[in-house]
Amino acid sequence: MGGAYREFIAMITVNATRLLGRMQTMAEIGALPNGGVRRLALTDEDKLARELFIRWCRELNLEVTVDEMGSIFARKRARPRGDSLQPVLLTGSHLDSQPSGGRFDGVLGVLAALEAVEVLIENNINHAYDIEIVSWTNEEGARFAPAMIASGVFAGAFTLEYALDRTDASGTRLGDALKCIGFAGSRSAVYRTDSPESPESPESPSLPSSPSLPSSPVKAYIELHIEQGPILEQAGESIGIVGGVQGIRWYDVTIHGKETHAGPSPMAMRNDPVPVLGALISRLYTMAAGFGDDARITIGELSVQPGSRNTVPGTVQFSVDIRHPLADTLQAMHEQVLEICAGDGIGCTEIWHSPPVHFDAGCVDAVEAAARQLNYAHRRMVSGAGHDAVYVSRVAPTAMIFIPCRDGISHNEAEFARDEHVIAGANVLLATLLKLK
Amino acid sequence: MGGAYREFIAMITVNATRLLGRMQTMAEIGALPNGGVRRLALTDEDKLARELFIRWCRELNLEVTVDEMGSIFARKRARPRGDSLQPVLLTGSHLDSQPSGGRFDGVLGVLAALEAVEVLIENNINHAYDIEIVSWTNEEGARFAPAMIASGVFAGAFTLEYALDRTDASGTRLGDALKCIGFAGSRSAVYRTDSPESPESPESPSLPSSPSLPSSPVKAYIELHIEQGPILEQAGESIGIVGGVQGIRWYDVTIHGKETHAGPSPMAMRNDPVPVLGALISRLYTMAAGFGDDARITIGELSVQPGSRNTVPGTVQFSVDIRHPLADTLQAMHEQVLEICAGDGIGCTEIWHSPPVHFDAGCVDAVEAAARQLNYAHRRMVSGAGHDAVYVSRVAPTAMIFIPCRDGISHNEAEFARDEHVIAGANVLLATLLKLK
Repeated sequence: MGGAYREFIAMITVNATRLLGRMQTMAEIGALPNGGVRRLALTDEDKLARELFIRWCRELNLEVTVDEMGSIFARKRARPRGDSLQPVLLTGSHLDSQPSGGRFDGVLGVLAALEAVEVLIENNINHAYDIEIVSWTNEEGARFAPAMIASGVFAGAFTLEYALDRTDASGTRLGDALKCIGFAGSRSAVYRTDSPESPESPESPSLPSSPSLPSSPVKAYIELHIEQGPILEQAGESIGIVGGVQGIRWYDVTIHGKETHAGPSPMAMRNDPVPVLGALISRLYTMAAGFGDDARITIGELSVQPGSRNTVPGTVQFSVDIRHPLADTLQAMHEQVLEICAGDGIGCTEIWHSPPVHFDAGCVDAVEAAARQLNYAHRRMVSGAGHDAVYVSRVAPTAMIFIPCRDGISHNEAEFARDEHVIAGANVLLATLLKLK
Repeated sequence: MGGAYREFIAMITVNATRLLGRMQTMAEIGALPNGGVRRLALTDEDKLARELFIRWCRELNLEVTVDEMGSIFARKRARPRGDSLQPVLLTGSHLDSQPSGGRFDGVLGVLAALEAVEVLIENNINHAYDIEIVSWTNEEGARFAPAMIASGVFAGAFTLEYALDRTDASGTRLGDALKCIGFAGSRSAVYRTDSPESPESPESPSLPSSPSLPSSPVKAYIELHIEQGPILEQAGESIGIVGGVQGIRWYDVTIHGKETHAGPSPMAMRNDPVPVLGALISRLYTMAAGFGDDARITIGELSVQPGSRNTVPGTVQFSVDIRHPLADTLQAMHEQVLEICAGDGIGCTEIWHSPPVHFDAGCVDAVEAAARQLNYAHRRMVSGAGHDAVYVSRVAPTAMIFIPCRDGISHNEAEFARDEHVIAGANVLLATLLKLK
């Protein structure tokens, strides 16, 4: 490869009009009145979005396959040799949304990947590995819990059977919903290369032998996403180089008191859980503050039973979510949560622990080199939210690219990313793919 | 009246077996598995309870009338002169229950009144005034809000039209539900004696002329009820002489924050309403404690929106209920609630104010004299809960009698009052009626 070609490659950028146009077209599927979308996984709206995405992929002669979880893969060959087991660069995100979601969350990563591939085709650019665009099924977890279920199956965090058996609020099985919209594919949903290039065995129990082919070895997975937080915007930066994901621990806390009529019982004769709640909230927030700027605490669910204005509650229940990028610090926070939420009548149960994730140094460096080459203001950061990339990182070298979103708002119709940031993110994705060899 | 007759009168007591038997029979209507009852106002269960009560009244040849609110009145004449406008001693309570209520709340006051009347009949005892047993419609407010609606109409707190127009959760009008169970009576539901004996004009706007007769002047209203609090039980006393009712003020408090994903936003960039909640709870409870043993504060409703484990709530809403028997102290507490719940992003609205009620000194003294005569351990106290007596006290001299209930529990299947206390309460009611002249 000569110097002139390298220079040409370094100047290649995405077609802003085309990418923004596709973002707009996609946002019309399940559009809500205030600019957001409602495109819950495996609904008719999701089906329309999938069909539109596949049509665009087929227009570029990409090879479209669908796996057993309904995730869509669209492959651009590095050269026409027709071997499905050649290693790939995987890139994408998801097309499903929250019930009242934004039009950037997930869609950006899928359509920017498509745009990057189209630029490669238009410019007839050589690349070392096949590139596969992926749209993961049910990332949001809004219709079927848990979230990121298809990338979780891919990485062996859940078995395929478990995932297909999940039901939505009306009792519909995920597997049946897949069939209903015609997206129960035959490609293996589990990453099993059966080759030494697979960096790690999936954790799932061995599956019954299936006719599905083993997956192509994944050389790298790159996911572009809006930040869903305020850091880049407040710093005036365009690109976040995501080196990993915060560790997260979740708790259910219950304070047991005694249900009593609000009037007759003197305060001294009550067993009222509410003042205990007040004290616990204060102690928990003070605890988190003591662990510095990278520590987070959230009490997102909070309810009292029976919830009657003139009845002293019998119980108070609330959730605690603590996060930190460092495992040791998260462990220290955990111990303090247990200490604070101990005592007569207080129950505290840890229900989830997702240790901090550290992405692949080579992939992260490639993203940083791309941002630097394109001269975008950038910073290294950790993701506070979960993404399909977290699961994929268990089985393949992974990194993420963030762009700012207004006020850090996501999972909301008000979610918004500026055109220049959408384009910047897509350009960094394109340049990263070209750097990964 | 000679001394021997007075001595005889003072020895008269209720028939324990008969009263407890009727309590048991009534508890079978709408019985729940754990000893409680579900007898929501104007349901089929309420109809059965009403019919049973009326059957018992008719067996004693009482004159049964039903008013426009469905409240049932059963009259024992002092002498057979047949004038409906003769003054009455009114006594009773209610037969409806909470959705999962106890079998003493309300029923005790109605059936003890019936028992007292039956003892007067059996013993052929002279009394100065006609006695009317009343069972008020929809005291609980569990099916139709507001609570104590029929006694409220009686006292002019609500117009009849307003009350009949109230709807339950399924949209059924109270007036239609009354017709449905056959209890839309013709007696005036509003206390209008059109005579100088009426102590006060009702506050309701003047009603269209109706064929209903003016009510009999009420000389006194006496209501026997379980305490629904722990004071008598803990003091080992059998009778509460209720001199009044705590004043109550209700507030809706909202803390506005900003809905944010639990992960990405550093704590310093959040506008999280939860730590504000923690601080407000602590300050409100500390404030109430500063007003001494008679002050009460309850936060019975508390919710966060959107209520998702990994989302910083956008808003927190909670109710505040403060109570005190003295108007001045309640006002001082009110001012402090407003002061504590002031500040950026905090909204506090008072939604109800029920000033302290002071019952009629003559009626309260009569209850106390009765308890003393019967040698029951007793105390003067205020009611912490609302009762039909609160509204009736606006238009007629009123007092209440309390008996202990186990652990102060009410509005719950576990509600329980010991036989000896049921009998004590009924005996005090009987003796009080005989003292009121």
